[in-house]
Amino acid sequence: MNTEPYQSCIEACDACAAACDRCASACLGEPDIAHIAKCIRLNADCASLCRFTSAALARESHLAPEFCALCAQICDECADECSRHPSEQCGTCSDTCRICAEVCRGIWSQ
Amino acid sequence: MNTEPYQSCIEACDACAAACDRCASACLGEPDIAHIAKCIRLNADCASLCRFTSAALARESHLAPEFCALCAQICDECADECSRHPSEQCGTCSDTCRICAEVCRGIWSQ
Amino acid sequence: MNTEPYQSCIEACDACAAACDRCASACLGEPDIAHIAKCIRLNADCASLCRFTSAALARESHLAPEFCALCAQICDECADECSRHPSEQCGTCSDTCRICAEVCRGIWSQ
Amino acid sequence: MNTEPYQSCIEACDACAAACDRCASACLGEPDIAHIAKCIRLNADCASLCRFTSAALARESHLAPEFCALCAQICDECADECSRHPSEQCGTCSDTCRICAEVCRGIWSQ
Repeated sequence: MNTEPYQSCIEACDACAAACDRCASACLGEPDIAHIAKCIRLNADCASLCRFTSAALARESHLAPEFCALCAQICDECADECSRHPSEQCGTCSDTCRICAEVCRGIWSQ
Repeated sequence: MNTEPYQSCIEACDACAAACDRCASACLGEPDIAHIAKCIRLNADCASLCRFTSAALARESHLAPEFCALCAQICDECADECSRHPSEQCGTCSDTCRICAEVCRGIWSQ
Repeated sequence: MNTEPYQSCIEACDACAAACDRCASACLGEPDIAHIAKCIRLNADCASLCRFTSAALARESHLAPEFCALCAQICDECADECSRHPSEQCGTCSDTCRICAEVCRGIWSQ
Repeated sequence: MNTEPYQSCIEACDACAAACDRCASACLGEPDIAHIAKCIRLNADCASLCRFTSAALARESHLAPEFCALCAQICDECADECSRHPSEQCGTCSDTCRICAEVCRGIWSQ
């Protein structure tokens, strides 16, 4: 078990970034793209902010808690949007975003 | 002249990211690293947040103004630290960070 | 005029990344997404590789020439795909990718 | 257990990126920075290429195998350098880079 600082939040951010990229990629194959474009846009914001936050946590940046606060907000927004779509990828992404939001808030409120 | 949305802020963020990466790289060659380690750490935060923000602006993310607000804050912090060091790279980086902070605040306050 | 090492290649990579992100964002609003999905996928590869390469050039990484070689290849591929679509964003993106590919090859062949 | 495509390689890249960022951060606190500057530089290349590759794998980019080939090369180079230093962070980073290199080569040779 990895006991490095912030390890569980790094893992949550990495998992969320992968789920968002997978969701966007699968959504691009959906027939009704107009319906799903907002989801793909939020996936891009969320994936890249999660990777940015993960890196800042690994560097133990003194700003990591602030980055986590913003990350939690975007994760929640992405989860809300994905939860409105019945596809499997959106369901997985929504769940993974909720977990990441919660773990990030845990860093912020420490 | 490129008249795309957010173009001047994208350019300011890209210039700031490059200045921060160059500053960190040059600072790694300084003899008294203990003196300069904080600068290198802030360079890493600032460079990666500027690249993240630049990408969000190019995507015209609806969250771009919020990302710019955070980016302005980190740019100011990096500029403050760099302005305390007499090296050429720190001077250039500090100036470039100040410009980026100002342009980002312009997006935020729109 | 900025006379730092690799400056023109950094600028070409940054411009290409922004053009790719803008192209993907505009393509998401197109009615026939099935037609344009491959373009959006290549935009994502090209934008993120250009930002990665730009950062490596700013750090004066000893591996920068190898990163530029791969970047040139992806830029060409993205330009080829975009050139098959008549939209304004694809035209701009294709042109910007061609320039970036050429500048990156210049670093590689030095 | 996550059975998504490329999942084990995504996890190896994410773990390697975090190990490299942690190694660089800890090395910045070392007294003899001249000795360790090359390590910090390679950490930056390796961490950012691993995150780029992880994202490409999650998108199932058709270029993922080529990105993995380059990633394996940089991971090996970073592992070689870290293995020359006795610090705990360099040992962990070297081991994590070796695993990532091997998993990336597995994607490339498929």
